Amino acid sequence: MPIETAIIRIAEVLGPRLSQSSAVRSQHAQNEAHFKEAQPDAVAFVESTSEVAEVMRICHEERCPVTAWGAGTALEGQNLPVMGGVTLNMMAMNNILAVNAEDMDAVVQPGVTREELNENLRATGLFFSVDPGANASMGGMAATRASGTTALRYGTMRDNIRSLEVVLADGRVLRCGGRARKSASGYDLASMFIGSEGTLGVITELTVKLHGIPESTAAASCAFESIEQAVQAVVATIQVGIPVARMELLDVGYVDVLNERFDLALPSKPHLFLEFHGSELVVQEQAEIVGELAVELGGANFDWKTRAEDRNLLWRARHHAYEAMCSAHPGRHALVTDACVPISQLADAVESARADIEASSLPGAIIGHVGDGNFHAQLMVRDGSAADLEEAKAMANRIAARSLEAGGTITGEHGIGMGKTHFMEAEHGVGWDVMGELKALLDPGGILNPGKLLRPKAS
Amino acid sequence: MPIETAIIRIAEVLGPRLSQSSAVRSQHAQNEAHFKEAQPDAVAFVESTSEVAEVMRICHEERCPVTAWGAGTALEGQNLPVMGGVTLNMMAMNNILAVNAEDMDAVVQPGVTREELNENLRATGLFFSVDPGANASMGGMAATRASGTTALRYGTMRDNIRSLEVVLADGRVLRCGGRARKSASGYDLASMFIGSEGTLGVITELTVKLHGIPESTAAASCAFESIEQAVQAVVATIQVGIPVARMELLDVGYVDVLNERFDLALPSKPHLFLEFHGSELVVQEQAEIVGELAVELGGANFDWKTRAEDRNLLWRARHHAYEAMCSAHPGRHALVTDACVPISQLADAVESARADIEASSLPGAIIGHVGDGNFHAQLMVRDGSAADLEEAKAMANRIAARSLEAGGTITGEHGIGMGKTHFMEAEHGVGWDVMGELKALLDPGGILNPGKLLRPKAS
Repeated sequence: MPIETAIIRIAEVLGPRLSQSSAVRSQHAQNEAHFKEAQPDAVAFVESTSEVAEVMRICHEERCPVTAWGAGTALEGQNLPVMGGVTLNMMAMNNILAVNAEDMDAVVQPGVTREELNENLRATGLFFSVDPGANASMGGMAATRASGTTALRYGTMRDNIRSLEVVLADGRVLRCGGRARKSASGYDLASMFIGSEGTLGVITELTVKLHGIPESTAAASCAFESIEQAVQAVVATIQVGIPVARMELLDVGYVDVLNERFDLALPSKPHLFLEFHGSELVVQEQAEIVGELAVELGGANFDWKTRAEDRNLLWRARHHAYEAMCSAHPGRHALVTDACVPISQLADAVESARADIEASSLPGAIIGHVGDGNFHAQLMVRDGSAADLEEAKAMANRIAARSLEAGGTITGEHGIGMGKTHFMEAEHGVGWDVMGELKALLDPGGILNPGKLLRPKAS
Repeated sequence: MPIETAIIRIAEVLGPRLSQSSAVRSQHAQNEAHFKEAQPDAVAFVESTSEVAEVMRICHEERCPVTAWGAGTALEGQNLPVMGGVTLNMMAMNNILAVNAEDMDAVVQPGVTREELNENLRATGLFFSVDPGANASMGGMAATRASGTTALRYGTMRDNIRSLEVVLADGRVLRCGGRARKSASGYDLASMFIGSEGTLGVITELTVKLHGIPESTAAASCAFESIEQAVQAVVATIQVGIPVARMELLDVGYVDVLNERFDLALPSKPHLFLEFHGSELVVQEQAEIVGELAVELGGANFDWKTRAEDRNLLWRARHHAYEAMCSAHPGRHALVTDACVPISQLADAVESARADIEASSLPGAIIGHVGDGNFHAQLMVRDGSAADLEEAKAMANRIAARSLEAGGTITGEHGIGMGKTHFMEAEHGVGWDVMGELKALLDPGGILNPGKLLRPKAS
C-alpha cells in the first residue's frame, strides 16, 4: 500500500514527530465549516524546509496524498485530508526570521500566526495588515489568498507578499520573488502559489510587506434607510479617492444581534462601520468628507469616534459578529457565503441575498467588506437538519450564480476548497482546464491536497 | 517550410492585412535598445480576438514563430522576431470597450496606448496610473509588467490589472480574472501572463483599474549633498507612511544636463523630485512633512511648487531626461540598466554604479524611481564602437550582479527579453527551470516569441 510504505519511510526521517495516534489524527480531521470529518493516516510535525522536502520526495515516490495544516481556520475545507495520507502540520515552523524595518518587510515561517507577527512587530511602529478575522497562520493565509476588513486600503495576501519559498511535489525547493519592491524578471511564480490552496506546493517561508502604524485612527458608524443608500455612500467615498482603511456593511440582522450582545444602541437599520488611518489632520478631514457624503445620500447618526475605547467597542462588535449570530441562534450552526461583485452591482446583489433570506425558513444576516464588493450571508442551519443544510446550500448556490452574472466571483476570500468546485467551470471556462494542466505539470502524481479546487479526475 | 506554409494559410484569413513587403517587415525589425535588427517573414495586422486565435492555431500547427508587436517601445528587445515568422501587429485592436466609472475600471484592447486611454478618460475624473514614460500600448505594458514613476503610490501593471483575455499558443481563448476588486477563486492565471513577454500567450483584452484624479497636486524638488542623504530622506518618508505619488532621484549628471536643457537653475547636486496627490490639505501637509524630513537629513533648497506651470516644467524635464542625456552627447546612443534593490541597499547600489561610471570611459548618469528601490544608469556609447558597447554591457552586468547580491532583482521594469537571460539562473535558480516547464506546457511547439526570457533549448 503506497500510503503505508510512505508512512514507514517518513517515520524514519521524523521519528516520533510522525504520529498515527487516533487523538492526533482526529484533531486534524475537523474543520470550521460544514464538511464531514476526514482523518489523515498520519500527521507529520515538520520543523524545517528540508524536512518538508524530504517528506514530499517520499510521498511523490510513493504516490501518498499530502495536505498542509496551519491554524485550522480554513472555511472551505482546504485543510481536510479527504483522501487520507499524510497531513503536514506546519505550526512548529513558527519563527520570525527577520524584520527589516527600513525595507518594511518581514521574513516568516508559515506557522507564524498573524497575531504573533503583529505582537512581535509592536516595537517597530510597523504592522502586518491582512486581517481575515481568525488568527490564521501566515502560510494558510497565503495559500488561500486571504483578505478581510483592511484589504480595501492595504490589499489582500496577493498584494502583501514579496516572495515565497515553496516545496514542490517532487521535493524541489523553489524561491520565487525577492525583497525588492517590484520586479519585471520572468514569470510571476509567487502569484501562482498564492491562492493555490496547497495543490501546487507547500509554502515554507514568506517575505511579507509591512505598513507604518498610522499616527491616528478614527472609527465611525452611520445608519442608512436602505442597503442601496449605504452602498451609494461607499461608491461616492471611493470615487472621491479617500483611502478609507475599513468600510463594512452590516444589515439589520447583524445590527440587531450586535446591539443585543454589545449594547451598541444603534438604530435598527443597515449600517456602515468605517475606519480612517493617517495623520490627525488627514483622519479628521477624511471622516468629515465621508460624513458629509453619507448624510447627503441619506445616512443618519454619522457618529465619529476617536477615543480608543469607543473605536474598540465598534470593531470588537464587528469582529465578533459571526459568534454573536451563532449565540443568538442556539442549536444552530452557520453556513457562510462569500460572493464578491463589481461595486456597481453590489446593492442589487446584497438586496437579492437579503430577499433570499427573507423568503427562506432560515434565520440569517449579511455583512460585507463593502468597499471591495465582497459580502457574506451567514445562514443559520439547525444542527443535524439535512433539510436546513440543503436549503442553505441552495441559497449559497443562488448567491454565487448571481455573482457570476453580475461579473463577480464565487469567492472573494474564502477560496474554493471542496465547497465551490461545482462553480469553477462557470467562472473560469478554459481557465479551469488550464488550472488542471498546471496542476498535472507541477504535481503529476496528484499527491498535493487531492480533492480540492480542481476538476475531479475522470475515473 | 513551416513558416512559408503558415504564411500562405494566414494570408487566406487576413488577405491584404498580412504583409510581406520589405518596408513593413523592416519597420517591425527595429528596437529602442542596442539589439540587432531582426525581420519577421510577415506582419499580420490583426483586428479581433478571433483573428488572433485563428493565426495562432495555424502557427501552432505549422510550428511558425509568432511575436506580438505593440507601440514598439520595449527596452530589452521583447518585440523583436529573432527567429523570424509572423509578427502580430496589435495596434489596430485599439478600442476602449468600456469605462465603468462606478467600478473604476476600463476594458481596453491591447493596442490602446496609455495616453489614448487617459485622453479618453478626461471627462470622467478618473485616470489610468501606470506611466513608464513612453506612450506604450496597454498590451505591451501588461506583457512586460511595466511600471514607472507613479508605481510608488499606485502600483505596477501587476497591481492595476483586474482581468485579461489571452489567446494561448494553440488558439484557445482564455479569460482570467473578473471585474470584482478581489477574488480567491482558483489559481491567479492573470498574474502568470503579466510580465510573460508574449512567451505564454497573446493578450487581446485588458480590464484595468482606474484612480480618481486627485483634487490637488504639488511638486517639489530638493538638493542633497550626497545620494546617501537623498536615499535617507526617501526611507524616512516611506516609514512615516506618507503616500508620495512620485519620488525620483537624479544624480549630478542628470541635474547638470537638465539645467542646461530646461533652464531649471538647480544646484549642481543630487536631487529628489517629488509629487504629492490628494486634497489641498493633505498635499500641503505631506509636502510640509517631507520638506522637514528632507531638511533634517541635510536636504537644501526644498522647493514646493503648486502652480501647474512650475510642476509641469519639473516633470517635463524628468520625462525628457533620457533624450536630454542623448542630446548632450551627440554621436552616442544609450544603454540603460534597470536594477531594483531593497531600499536599505539603495544608497550603496547607486553609489557603486556612480563609481563604476566614474571609473569608465563612458559618460553616464543615474536616475531612479527611488521610492521603489529602482534605478537606471544611462550609459552613453559611441555609435559604432564595439568596445564602448562591451564596456557598457560589462558595467550593466556588474550592476545587475550587485543587485542580486543585495537581495534585489536584475530588472525592476524593463524585463528580460534578449538582454538579461544570462542572469536568470542566478536570480531564480529552480524557478527558471519551472518557468521553462510552464512554457513547455502552454507552448509545446515553442512558437511564442522564441529566444526571449527562457533558457535556450539545448540543441
